[in-house]
Amino acid sequence: MSVQDLRIGVIGVGMMGADHAERVVNRVAGARLVAVADPDTARADQLAASFDGVRSIGDPLALVADPEVDAVIIASPGFVHEEQVLACLEHGKYALCEKPLTMDSESSLRLVEAEAKGGRPLVQVGFMRRFDPEYAQLKAMLDSGQFGRTLLLHNTHRNATVPDTFRSEMIVRDSLVHEVDVARFVFGEEIVEITVLAGTPTGVAAEGVLDPQVSLFRMAGGGLVTSEVFVNCRVGYEVRCEAVAERGTVVAGQNSTGIYSTVADERGGYWGGQVPPDFRVRFARAYDLEVQAWVDASRRGEVVGPTSWDGYAATAVCTAGMESLATGLPVKVDLADRATVLGGAAR
Amino acid sequence: MSVQDLRIGVIGVGMMGADHAERVVNRVAGARLVAVADPDTARADQLAASFDGVRSIGDPLALVADPEVDAVIIASPGFVHEEQVLACLEHGKYALCEKPLTMDSESSLRLVEAEAKGGRPLVQVGFMRRFDPEYAQLKAMLDSGQFGRTLLLHNTHRNATVPDTFRSEMIVRDSLVHEVDVARFVFGEEIVEITVLAGTPTGVAAEGVLDPQVSLFRMAGGGLVTSEVFVNCRVGYEVRCEAVAERGTVVAGQNSTGIYSTVADERGGYWGGQVPPDFRVRFARAYDLEVQAWVDASRRGEVVGPTSWDGYAATAVCTAGMESLATGLPVKVDLADRATVLGGAAR
Amino acid sequence: MSVQDLRIGVIGVGMMGADHAERVVNRVAGARLVAVADPDTARADQLAASFDGVRSIGDPLALVADPEVDAVIIASPGFVHEEQVLACLEHGKYALCEKPLTMDSESSLRLVEAEAKGGRPLVQVGFMRRFDPEYAQLKAMLDSGQFGRTLLLHNTHRNATVPDTFRSEMIVRDSLVHEVDVARFVFGEEIVEITVLAGTPTGVAAEGVLDPQVSLFRMAGGGLVTSEVFVNCRVGYEVRCEAVAERGTVVAGQNSTGIYSTVADERGGYWGGQVPPDFRVRFARAYDLEVQAWVDASRRGEVVGPTSWDGYAATAVCTAGMESLATGLPVKVDLADRATVLGGAAR
Amino acid sequence: MSVQDLRIGVIGVGMMGADHAERVVNRVAGARLVAVADPDTARADQLAASFDGVRSIGDPLALVADPEVDAVIIASPGFVHEEQVLACLEHGKYALCEKPLTMDSESSLRLVEAEAKGGRPLVQVGFMRRFDPEYAQLKAMLDSGQFGRTLLLHNTHRNATVPDTFRSEMIVRDSLVHEVDVARFVFGEEIVEITVLAGTPTGVAAEGVLDPQVSLFRMAGGGLVTSEVFVNCRVGYEVRCEAVAERGTVVAGQNSTGIYSTVADERGGYWGGQVPPDFRVRFARAYDLEVQAWVDASRRGEVVGPTSWDGYAATAVCTAGMESLATGLPVKVDLADRATVLGGAAR
Repeated sequence: MSVQDLRIGVIGVGMMGADHAERVVNRVAGARLVAVADPDTARADQLAASFDGVRSIGDPLALVADPEVDAVIIASPGFVHEEQVLACLEHGKYALCEKPLTMDSESSLRLVEAEAKGGRPLVQVGFMRRFDPEYAQLKAMLDSGQFGRTLLLHNTHRNATVPDTFRSEMIVRDSLVHEVDVARFVFGEEIVEITVLAGTPTGVAAEGVLDPQVSLFRMAGGGLVTSEVFVNCRVGYEVRCEAVAERGTVVAGQNSTGIYSTVADERGGYWGGQVPPDFRVRFARAYDLEVQAWVDASRRGEVVGPTSWDGYAATAVCTAGMESLATGLPVKVDLADRATVLGGAAR
Repeated sequence: MSVQDLRIGVIGVGMMGADHAERVVNRVAGARLVAVADPDTARADQLAASFDGVRSIGDPLALVADPEVDAVIIASPGFVHEEQVLACLEHGKYALCEKPLTMDSESSLRLVEAEAKGGRPLVQVGFMRRFDPEYAQLKAMLDSGQFGRTLLLHNTHRNATVPDTFRSEMIVRDSLVHEVDVARFVFGEEIVEITVLAGTPTGVAAEGVLDPQVSLFRMAGGGLVTSEVFVNCRVGYEVRCEAVAERGTVVAGQNSTGIYSTVADERGGYWGGQVPPDFRVRFARAYDLEVQAWVDASRRGEVVGPTSWDGYAATAVCTAGMESLATGLPVKVDLADRATVLGGAAR
Repeated sequence: MSVQDLRIGVIGVGMMGADHAERVVNRVAGARLVAVADPDTARADQLAASFDGVRSIGDPLALVADPEVDAVIIASPGFVHEEQVLACLEHGKYALCEKPLTMDSESSLRLVEAEAKGGRPLVQVGFMRRFDPEYAQLKAMLDSGQFGRTLLLHNTHRNATVPDTFRSEMIVRDSLVHEVDVARFVFGEEIVEITVLAGTPTGVAAEGVLDPQVSLFRMAGGGLVTSEVFVNCRVGYEVRCEAVAERGTVVAGQNSTGIYSTVADERGGYWGGQVPPDFRVRFARAYDLEVQAWVDASRRGEVVGPTSWDGYAATAVCTAGMESLATGLPVKVDLADRATVLGGAAR
Repeated sequence: MSVQDLRIGVIGVGMMGADHAERVVNRVAGARLVAVADPDTARADQLAASFDGVRSIGDPLALVADPEVDAVIIASPGFVHEEQVLACLEHGKYALCEKPLTMDSESSLRLVEAEAKGGRPLVQVGFMRRFDPEYAQLKAMLDSGQFGRTLLLHNTHRNATVPDTFRSEMIVRDSLVHEVDVARFVFGEEIVEITVLAGTPTGVAAEGVLDPQVSLFRMAGGGLVTSEVFVNCRVGYEVRCEAVAERGTVVAGQNSTGIYSTVADERGGYWGGQVPPDFRVRFARAYDLEVQAWVDASRRGEVVGPTSWDGYAATAVCTAGMESLATGLPVKVDLADRATVLGGAAR
């Protein structure tokens, strides 16, 4: 057999990592799960045992170094991403790193520089929305030129609920970061300024958490982006994006999709459908397509999808956003010069 | 003042009649409610007293004859329509007669003939859907020619619930009659054959009532029409029409309209909106437009909207439909020759 | 007849005034159009002649003073509103004044004070959206308490096109003013701060006009409101409002409403419907309901709907908004103390 | 490695077979495409060469017999299905056979009997709609019991266009067959009677083809099913199903789904989205899920999804349907006794 399956290791066996492991085994072509690694070895052992022929490795860095592993999915907590991605770069392994790339923009920039120095692209960041068929189609429609120049973007990002440990700043760094990537993806430009505002918070969330938040981005080319992030909205996972261009608009993620029913309760009769309960349901297809595309590209020796630069830029915008949330004022985004950093490796 | 308001009398003070009386007083221009009549004089007195300057007249035929009454809304039970419409013809009063025109096609035909003999159109039948903005637009779009020839029509007609006295045949005569008129209106042709079928009835209705029913019309020009009528659907009042033409389709009354919300209950989060509880809500605007158009036409000395012939033809189709419901077989519609009946008065 | 029709005069015979005149004649119960007035007497004569028994009066103030006129619809340009409304107050005539109430907040405040001094409410301002069935239902649903506290409001306001004379500031004063009123209506609170931002303008509009604009309101109670106003969007008139509350959301004006069709062109097959071409189509029903409610209330000796205070407050917010548009910074709204101004007349 | 990939051969390299081959290679986990077979060996060679390590085998029956092939996808024309499925049964190979199972009910029944005799289920028929997430969810919602008993089903099945060789009977056998399977799937019952009616045909299709067609099924339990099949509708591929139950309805495949846009052309502004151009787009996900489920089941030694009995029953209904199309009358479905045929193998 001339083309070998890509042998994959997964670091981190929490919800996201276990999900990816199951995806590789059950729904991805051309790949083989060979190892999982987690400091919580009991949990890693248990996950490995649920599949055939998958090893559990205690040390994530050992997994990266393992000669039987061709490529690594990094689904560990963000604060250990830096060393794990660096290890991948060192061993020449393809890495699909969940967002955020790292916890602050300095460390993210170091990764970009390390990869550029290696001269060979190896890192993809897990901004899965780019693989969602609706977001991809929105982008394609705007890029077709039929709508003229894109002027505005309105994002809605709602979660039914989050743990009490999910604090105000995390709404920027872990939730809004997706809208940051979407804005950069749709406009194909950097964000130069961000304002994050909070009004009276919902009473149906942990005390002291500023939720919902409304933010405004200014794009390098003059476009404006509004985003609502509301992580305790109680209803479900609603993620929507409306692009406004000179000659029309495009909407992805409108709720009124898919199957619907009519039913009656004691108050009357209703038509409608279910709001997805969480991101795994809403973006199930996007995750499948993301991992398949990553596997396919890795086997061809390429990287597609969001790069380490995208990961770095998103982190830089969120850093500015967290500052704005504290002050209520617009904050300029501090971003390295791309051409300088990437040099000949600029993609 | 050169143009006088149209002085209107309403016969029948049940739900429909009271509704029309209130409409004339509160939402119609160029008209004045002057009298109401009902054998139940107490109820008529009460309704009259709720307005200024409205008389209660015991005898409906006296109302018709009253010199202060220019035009009559007939909202009495169907079995007294014949004599009341005849009285209007005799006294030269404009009549807006609720459907059905009469209870059988012979008596309806007699009214058509009497009006034709008088040489002056005076009767409009209360098929209000023709005045619903969506049905009117559907008709206009199909008539524009852009879709080519209309081939099929699919109707849905659901009521939340009906009284236990509403039996299987009434589903044809009082409910399906609207789809009969819609089919004739949209195609601009007569119905030549009707089949009415019942499957296993819902268990959530009166014992022995064949509900829902599915019917099929063949149009004179070869078009086919399917209709579901389900009068105990529990959910609400859903009335929808999909026209299928050679180069596209047009849908009126789709549920997913208007305001909607997202909410959560113990089972999850939902998006959607309310199904109208009954026909008065769903067709509120259609009734207003119907009565306003009737008032305007009457003041100009004209009749617009469904005519006595439309009322007769609908009754003839329903008569055949009730026969089909009993036998399960297609039944040809027995219709007089229009040109012969209407003679020079054919409109 | 114990209750007389309300005798109405219309000032201003431009598009809006002619529309209202036609509405009073053809679709409103209990009212009679008796006079129209416009400095352009030829145009006023022409409009008057198109109806029976309607006089054309050259001087708008003479119309107000005319003893045959009970109530006045003011549809003249904004800069003459002050003296016309004052004349109504002086002669004790009910006035329905199109927005804006006046061109600046000082003059609006003078009207509020004059009316309060008269001790009798006479003025309604033409914020018709409050009468749109969807906006009214949105308000009612939020007020029902089932959704908890309202936290955010997102408005969309798009016109297909405007004349080249419609400049950047007018987008605030003449367009955004509707969102200002909607925000005050939905929250039942004043707006305390406004930011109006413009990005790169569309290339498909008059040179130098800052269009689209994105604005942010802070409500007195801590709610946040975003509004997009885009008056050269090319597509049509789209007006939408999404309220976000603690336990759900409510959306009014979603595009995907009403009749729709499927058709094919050379690029493929599409489903969808028409975006209303302009506000007269979109808010036809709202205008009818607004004027009918005003007539009904006037006949009862009351004022319902938006008051002169609502007109003043909206003007004050827009004044701050135009300042913000120039500076790009948040501007506090300078508003008189309501209780002081209205005194015992506070409603 | 303890679990081997399923080694798959594909028979027939037309549009459907090539599609399946590409699917197995690129989007299915746990499978390996090893061979393709087609009498048109040049075309088979070309397809094989586009993948790594795939052989082209001239004789389909040789492919079935090949020891390196574990399972076979049969995408050849219907008239050779019988011998190819029989070969699979003989060699104990799992088969996913595209619909129709065979061209007439006698031969389909022979396959059911042969498989039953073998005592081991091996055959799945390619009714992919059962794997479409919306159809699957509709089924699950109805089966949950919350809606009460299912009473009616309304199907819509439209293709933009078909080749001129696609004649009236093929609309029943190749198109309506999907609605036949959907009705049996949703109700979990056999169809006992079918009527297929044609009205005036569209003028935008091949001369003499009776298109569109409206059909009516009576289910064994008394339910009624209407289906529109219109294979030259010009617009696109619209497949929809509305189930009507005692306490509500469920709709799958409603057009108004997914991404949408607003745009203007010379006639006005529109909102809406694209109708899928063909079944490969509309059911892309369903085909992926179907083949993945078949691979997974085959590796476990099971058959899931539509069985040979389902294929036989659908053929029997379509045979009756073609007779009805010719006569215009209801035709009873002639079906073998399931328990007798399947004996102990009844699933």
